Amino acid sequence: MKEFKGIGASEGISIGKVMLFIEEEMNIPQEKISEVQVGTEIEKLLDAQKKSKLQLISIRDKVKEKMGEDKAAIFDGHIMLLEDDDLMDEVKDKIKAEKMAASRALDEGVNEYCEMISQLDDPYLREREADLKDVGKRWLKNILGIRMKDLSNLDPETVVVAYDLTPSDTAQLDLKNAVGFITEIGGKTSHSAIMARSLELPAVVGVKDALKEMADGASIVMNGEVGEIIIEPDAEILKDYTEKREAYLKEKEELKKLIDEEAVTADGHKVELWGNIGSPEDIDAVLEAGATGVGLYRTEFLFMNSDHLPTEEEQYKAYRVVAEKLQGKPVTIRTMDIGGDKELPYMDLPKELNPFLGWRAIRISLVKQDIFKTQLRAILRASAYGQVKIMYPMVTSINEVRKANEILDECKRELDEIGKKYDKDIKVGIMVETPSVAIISYKFAKEVDFFSIGTNDLTQYFLAVDRGNELVASLYDSFNPAVLEAIQKVIDAGHDRNISVSMCGEFAGDRRATELLLGMGLDAFSMSASSVLQVKKKIRNSSYEKAQKYRDEILALNTPEEVLENLR
Amino acid sequence: MKEFKGIGASEGISIGKVMLFIEEEMNIPQEKISEVQVGTEIEKLLDAQKKSKLQLISIRDKVKEKMGEDKAAIFDGHIMLLEDDDLMDEVKDKIKAEKMAASRALDEGVNEYCEMISQLDDPYLREREADLKDVGKRWLKNILGIRMKDLSNLDPETVVVAYDLTPSDTAQLDLKNAVGFITEIGGKTSHSAIMARSLELPAVVGVKDALKEMADGASIVMNGEVGEIIIEPDAEILKDYTEKREAYLKEKEELKKLIDEEAVTADGHKVELWGNIGSPEDIDAVLEAGATGVGLYRTEFLFMNSDHLPTEEEQYKAYRVVAEKLQGKPVTIRTMDIGGDKELPYMDLPKELNPFLGWRAIRISLVKQDIFKTQLRAILRASAYGQVKIMYPMVTSINEVRKANEILDECKRELDEIGKKYDKDIKVGIMVETPSVAIISYKFAKEVDFFSIGTNDLTQYFLAVDRGNELVASLYDSFNPAVLEAIQKVIDAGHDRNISVSMCGEFAGDRRATELLLGMGLDAFSMSASSVLQVKKKIRNSSYEKAQKYRDEILALNTPEEVLENLR
Repeated sequence: MKEFKGIGASEGISIGKVMLFIEEEMNIPQEKISEVQVGTEIEKLLDAQKKSKLQLISIRDKVKEKMGEDKAAIFDGHIMLLEDDDLMDEVKDKIKAEKMAASRALDEGVNEYCEMISQLDDPYLREREADLKDVGKRWLKNILGIRMKDLSNLDPETVVVAYDLTPSDTAQLDLKNAVGFITEIGGKTSHSAIMARSLELPAVVGVKDALKEMADGASIVMNGEVGEIIIEPDAEILKDYTEKREAYLKEKEELKKLIDEEAVTADGHKVELWGNIGSPEDIDAVLEAGATGVGLYRTEFLFMNSDHLPTEEEQYKAYRVVAEKLQGKPVTIRTMDIGGDKELPYMDLPKELNPFLGWRAIRISLVKQDIFKTQLRAILRASAYGQVKIMYPMVTSINEVRKANEILDECKRELDEIGKKYDKDIKVGIMVETPSVAIISYKFAKEVDFFSIGTNDLTQYFLAVDRGNELVASLYDSFNPAVLEAIQKVIDAGHDRNISVSMCGEFAGDRRATELLLGMGLDAFSMSASSVLQVKKKIRNSSYEKAQKYRDEILALNTPEEVLENLR
Repeated sequence: MKEFKGIGASEGISIGKVMLFIEEEMNIPQEKISEVQVGTEIEKLLDAQKKSKLQLISIRDKVKEKMGEDKAAIFDGHIMLLEDDDLMDEVKDKIKAEKMAASRALDEGVNEYCEMISQLDDPYLREREADLKDVGKRWLKNILGIRMKDLSNLDPETVVVAYDLTPSDTAQLDLKNAVGFITEIGGKTSHSAIMARSLELPAVVGVKDALKEMADGASIVMNGEVGEIIIEPDAEILKDYTEKREAYLKEKEELKKLIDEEAVTADGHKVELWGNIGSPEDIDAVLEAGATGVGLYRTEFLFMNSDHLPTEEEQYKAYRVVAEKLQGKPVTIRTMDIGGDKELPYMDLPKELNPFLGWRAIRISLVKQDIFKTQLRAILRASAYGQVKIMYPMVTSINEVRKANEILDECKRELDEIGKKYDKDIKVGIMVETPSVAIISYKFAKEVDFFSIGTNDLTQYFLAVDRGNELVASLYDSFNPAVLEAIQKVIDAGHDRNISVSMCGEFAGDRRATELLLGMGLDAFSMSASSVLQVKKKIRNSSYEKAQKYRDEILALNTPEEVLENLR
């Protein structure tokens, strides 16, 4: 028996056998070719390019079916890289002028390209570098006639163990037989982790030396939530994990029964449970979880997953799809929250010393008014097809709200002039995520139609803690009494002016906080689709009256430690 | 008549004649020397080193007399660089092996050294680079026999215009005849600007092309507060500036009469005016301004201006000097506020993505407890010699205060054991500079003896604005209604528990805020010595009753713009 600990990347219990996924080594000929071979080598290069393209198209279609258009788009990018003219010229040149075999020429060409990209200090291009390596490897293997190792036909109950899984690896994964995967590198937000969660496949990432320390065919149990792995478990452990898996699956089944039930307490207090989404594709999961709307549509992904500023038409289509799919249920569209840690490849945002205290979100929108107006017009036009609300992010001052609303009015007039429809009573609200809005929320409540509390940033700014910084991450805690006081203040301020208060930060989906937030009077909880049913269960098992008393007890405490001790 | 606009770096009105301070060009021989010349060249090198050392010692002593030990220490650093063995070996090697003349060898040696330093991403060493260049230039001139251009004998009423002024230039400045200076580069916090303020000499920095556009001997008027410069002013302007200068000097004289007066309003409400200091040398200016104590002693400068962690004895001496000089007036010693933008050369603080939301101040102290205990013991021991208070910076949670106090109790016990004296009733307070403390200040008030509001960080965190970032600096505003609400909340929370509330951020010295803060009930204003008398005048001309009404009006406003419009 051998224990490993990694980063829990996708919840669920796996019980099965290890399959090591190790790439075959490639032997690239280093000898020079003769003049007469040049033609053949170039042919090899072009043939392998065609073959790679066909493979990529097939993967693309599979992924589209399994994971949606959004994820499939990655492979359109791969095909673009495969057909990059500059790269092709460079490689042909190496064959012709330097007399390299096609494989060596391609290998060196791709490496030089990657080298160049990696020296640019640009996270977007760095991501392209990983894609280019993935494409280059495929192309190279096709030249050398090495079959791509395939994950599409696995033995039953397989846990795949790999150094890393590329998007194309994950896309081909045999989902009937795979029960989980483990990678040596990566974190909670790496590509493979995100894929695992969207496939609902248990996964643990960041397990150092997994390939060296684990054997092919070894029996394995794994808890994808906490990152625990045990190889060759004894009978007792195996029994324990089997029970856990059953309980997990049973709980999942139980929760499904709640899909059509309301989020209402035992004593009749009803709240709304909404989903957070990043693209129209995410809507299905939200609806399947029985959410009654979308409390946060993060439009910045539309901007980030593109190589140009999305046009009004492109945005309008995306927003309209969401509005229509929701069939009258509300969707709150947040205007672009770029900056901070989110960059746009085609917009030259300056480097900042403290980006979280810098130029981001509404601060950019109010300066780059063209971009802002394009987005507002697109949202307005989509509002004709459902219940759309607009939300401004990173507000700190009332004048920002007033200025944004003036621009919104301008957009409405423009649409009136050209006779485009939109919801004339569209509701406009703000994210409450800076301390300045929280402390004078009673003043802001007079200016907006709703509040949505963004607990991630609110906690960060109240406590002056960048939670991505491991030196201080332990201080980051939304259960800090100061943050709780701020949340209560905002809810009260909203209710005093009869406007609704929702929450769309991670705290809204944290079951430890559900009863407390209920007692505080929160009107709507917006979270990732995967948390909706669990929070609903929690609410249905709660009493509003008790929750209010509980709230009073918690708010009287002084330190985060006291709060955590008193949570139930 | 020609107008220029620069950055006002040191207030006051100058009227005089331009003197261009241009360095003589140096001709460095590029020819190789012969073997027999090697000995002579090395001798030249050593002679010039000796000469430079004597010059530096003389400058050092002058500076000590004019500006105190603190500023003089810069030249000890210069002497150390001058006598650096590695550099000397390198240069000698160039003479012997590469047959360079001493001047060329030194020039190249220094440049290589600077190059090396500049590639290290370390602001401390970058500052050393400027020092090394300054030393290198002196040494080189002494080899070449070029007399250092001297600022110690100026014509009457001279305004010195230079590309930049090095510390050694400023140190030699003929203060009887200089009436101001202008530099092409630099900002409000550059070396030369700081020097100008401590010499009370009007100065404007960052005036591009000043050397090219101004003529030697031209008549000039200049306003060092706002950065206005006029060359060859006409009679009207000259008259205007003469009047302004008289008014300025008269105001200065008038203010001096207030030195021994109390900071009390016309209707008898008394507050305390304190000084902020960074080192024991700053105490004299505070006392001369008639401040009744020190509201903020920034001890991090003791750590930053040293090449090692200051020992308990070193710290104890510094703190004791301050306590003694104040003769019973209070001094609030803030424990080390390192991190954020303040680095220690000998402590390897990690690079952070958002340093202002990172590991700093009390967060470091509670982890590096050895350093913290050394400092607390030093402060405790100094408390036997005056009225010393302890203040913790960057607190966000009550448990941090409790933990710090436990460590303080440990230090007290240790001192008891070895029989060292200290003030058994020493008061312990916190900086209120994070939103989390502000919003639950009523809880913190039960845990501490006093609050001191640090408006710089408080504003930064409430508004999520790094004011050093010019893209968002315009959003940084302590007059933002949210910041004002927070300040009032903290003052009220303190008074509810009968603890005193002071302010030590820049806002305390901002005359536009004086009446408002008075109305809010602030007990003590702590600021740089140069602001004390002006704020005192303002307070003595105010009525507490009116200030309270004024406070109510201002707090009812919604936007920073409205507040600024309504200030009087």
